[in-house]
Amino acid sequence: MSETVLNVNAPPKDHVMVLDGQGWVGLVSMMGSETTIVNAARVSFGKFVSEISERDIILMKYLLENRHTSPLEHVVFSFIVHCPLFVRSQWHRHRTWSYNEISRRYTETDIEFYVPPMVRSQSENNRQASEDTMSKEAQNEAREMIRKANEQSLKEYEALLTKGVCREQARGVLTQNVMTTFWATVDLHNLAHFLEIRDHAGAQWEMVQYARAIKQLIKPKLPHVAEIMHW
Amino acid sequence: MSETVLNVNAPPKDHVMVLDGQGWVGLVSMMGSETTIVNAARVSFGKFVSEISERDIILMKYLLENRHTSPLEHVVFSFIVHCPLFVRSQWHRHRTWSYNEISRRYTETDIEFYVPPMVRSQSENNRQASEDTMSKEAQNEAREMIRKANEQSLKEYEALLTKGVCREQARGVLTQNVMTTFWATVDLHNLAHFLEIRDHAGAQWEMVQYARAIKQLIKPKLPHVAEIMHW
Amino acid sequence: MSETVLNVNAPPKDHVMVLDGQGWVGLVSMMGSETTIVNAARVSFGKFVSEISERDIILMKYLLENRHTSPLEHVVFSFIVHCPLFVRSQWHRHRTWSYNEISRRYTETDIEFYVPPMVRSQSENNRQASEDTMSKEAQNEAREMIRKANEQSLKEYEALLTKGVCREQARGVLTQNVMTTFWATVDLHNLAHFLEIRDHAGAQWEMVQYARAIKQLIKPKLPHVAEIMHW
Amino acid sequence: MSETVLNVNAPPKDHVMVLDGQGWVGLVSMMGSETTIVNAARVSFGKFVSEISERDIILMKYLLENRHTSPLEHVVFSFIVHCPLFVRSQWHRHRTWSYNEISRRYTETDIEFYVPPMVRSQSENNRQASEDTMSKEAQNEAREMIRKANEQSLKEYEALLTKGVCREQARGVLTQNVMTTFWATVDLHNLAHFLEIRDHAGAQWEMVQYARAIKQLIKPKLPHVAEIMHW
Repeated sequence: MSETVLNVNAPPKDHVMVLDGQGWVGLVSMMGSETTIVNAARVSFGKFVSEISERDIILMKYLLENRHTSPLEHVVFSFIVHCPLFVRSQWHRHRTWSYNEISRRYTETDIEFYVPPMVRSQSENNRQASEDTMSKEAQNEAREMIRKANEQSLKEYEALLTKGVCREQARGVLTQNVMTTFWATVDLHNLAHFLEIRDHAGAQWEMVQYARAIKQLIKPKLPHVAEIMHW
Repeated sequence: MSETVLNVNAPPKDHVMVLDGQGWVGLVSMMGSETTIVNAARVSFGKFVSEISERDIILMKYLLENRHTSPLEHVVFSFIVHCPLFVRSQWHRHRTWSYNEISRRYTETDIEFYVPPMVRSQSENNRQASEDTMSKEAQNEAREMIRKANEQSLKEYEALLTKGVCREQARGVLTQNVMTTFWATVDLHNLAHFLEIRDHAGAQWEMVQYARAIKQLIKPKLPHVAEIMHW
Repeated sequence: MSETVLNVNAPPKDHVMVLDGQGWVGLVSMMGSETTIVNAARVSFGKFVSEISERDIILMKYLLENRHTSPLEHVVFSFIVHCPLFVRSQWHRHRTWSYNEISRRYTETDIEFYVPPMVRSQSENNRQASEDTMSKEAQNEAREMIRKANEQSLKEYEALLTKGVCREQARGVLTQNVMTTFWATVDLHNLAHFLEIRDHAGAQWEMVQYARAIKQLIKPKLPHVAEIMHW
Repeated sequence: MSETVLNVNAPPKDHVMVLDGQGWVGLVSMMGSETTIVNAARVSFGKFVSEISERDIILMKYLLENRHTSPLEHVVFSFIVHCPLFVRSQWHRHRTWSYNEISRRYTETDIEFYVPPMVRSQSENNRQASEDTMSKEAQNEAREMIRKANEQSLKEYEALLTKGVCREQARGVLTQNVMTTFWATVDLHNLAHFLEIRDHAGAQWEMVQYARAIKQLIKPKLPHVAEIMHW
């Protein structure tokens, strides 16, 4: 039987690049549509439609604005995400998604590292925030420092492997800029919540880019929902 | 815009009838396939395939038998279920499904009642169990009693509505044999757990019929999984 | 070993009666306090306190108003609830609670039925709503009809049992006014969401009473949270 | 108001040290007991006890061995965990726990790194496994390499901060050996599942130590459960 082996570090066809081409989100599959939302809501009334009408758009608007979002749970997406480890950790705090991730216990190949395309400075008056106030020159210097730190950690990792140390312990010296890939499935109710929190002033810049990439991927599939939600 | 209004008491095209034609389960949509399971599992190794091979079937067998079932979460199903209220209550105890149900607060039409096609007797030595030991004659008498009780409760319900009592309070006099319809979405990991518990000697006969109907609906979609799981 | 057998139809010590004494909610146990919330939030900063200060109340206000409610998940409650079946069904739609319920497959004793202390009329302009516009006389007549329907269904149930029909099928003729008892555990984050939805104009009157009883039970335990949330 | 500020890097009173004193798990609070399990199970029968008897132990054994574990959900624990980042990532894959974690977006102080007390070699015939076959000398050399790599990453992190780079980007150069602290709440049903998977031959050695520490902490609280589960 023929077997096409694809590289997990390469995006699927329907994808959006982020972080200056270092990361991406791909849409692997989708179940349901705006008609699904309307019909799942109309089960309460005992009625189905095969195509949505103006009245249904008003119904969707009502559902979304009044947090009657259980009908959104019947629309489901699978994504593949390629991102830095620290973005992955924030993402995996969302416990209503299903995840399968590449494991550094299994494989030591294809290791890539993230270097921020834009380096930000620490906010003076908000402990959690960063600001876009660094000179181009200072940013370049910082990027060079980060690139070297990443490379150095890869050398140390490889030296440990050469010494015979197991992958699961050796990976401990890799920086948190290491890139990872995971498969992620979520329903629209929980995805909308994720997008609200993660495309937000309080979120880390890198995470915001992923949230916006997802909006870009799903907007054509759910045009009325996207408009109502201001995506 | 044209709008086809379907009756929520009628099954979708791909369905299995149960309880002597009184209930049914319909498969509305499905996301993913056996290839999805294999690829989600292989993310750990950083490899994808476009078609499953013999080696992949062995991998699936290993995953299922060793409870490494997270890759199954990327395969998702939406069903519409038409069943008695007491079956619905057992079903809704499964908290990993998404549900939207017809509401007797919204509508008072299309009320149907369940009458058991086979009446079972109470087990003497197992408080929870029932047995198939009733004579045809005794079953017929019991069925007639149940049919009358159902009809009587509908009359009382309608008398209360006529009196101006609100639907949400009037429904209190309807028997638990009343039929309901709900939309239900679940991933394969949680569906497999449901099928294990609900097509089981400890489950109520009516519930077992629904679990078996689901197996019948999804078997053609997941032939190797079905074989490994003995569905 | 001594064994005190308590009746599941009787409330625990710390409880609030509802529905004119026909139902109740009891608080069985609680884990954590307002100090827990503050400390769980402060883990982010790497600091703990042993007693809450004015600054901590401001922190709680900030957390609650900005939906940073993950620290609330470390405060947990166990309740016992005695309510009509249709209230139970609405309650069990909340999938983040843990439930254990009395089963009519196991026991046929202690069957009670709900009769509304206040009968409401159907709203003319809102399909889902009911109104408090029925005359005392009409209410008394409706209550009498409901009481008789409940009693009649119990007689039919007992007749089926006498005939040898199993409990799990015989219960089908009991009305949805039958009372049930369940044990329910939930964390404060999910409880607050429940209270917001269920003590609300859109909720059924009976359900609202239970939500308010819970507020009454937990207010003394979480005085600042209660004030911030306007319980 | 007096305020005792505790260090988040120091364990609470009731704790177990792991990884040669570098990490720990502390038990912060517990709700319920073995009596709770028995009573939650007995709700089905409509009966409560105030003290467990021999018959109740048999009931617990039946529940646990037949996976009727919903009564276990009413027993809840809060832990504080101090562990390496890679252990945290495996832990947080368990989506039924509630977590609050120290954030390197908020604080740059108290940074500690893990150095394995025992360095293991890569298994030849199992991609996922490691083995205890390294000489003491080779282990010492590997430990020294890891210690230096950790220290080097801290220097690079501090240099980036000095340059004005924001904490949330600078932390990207810290190794995955960095220690973290989180608050974690879980019910006994989901904890038992965690312990089964994480104190297991397939789990990473470091993770196994944490699972065993938890067993040690809760065994005195649930002696019969511990015996039945072979903890």
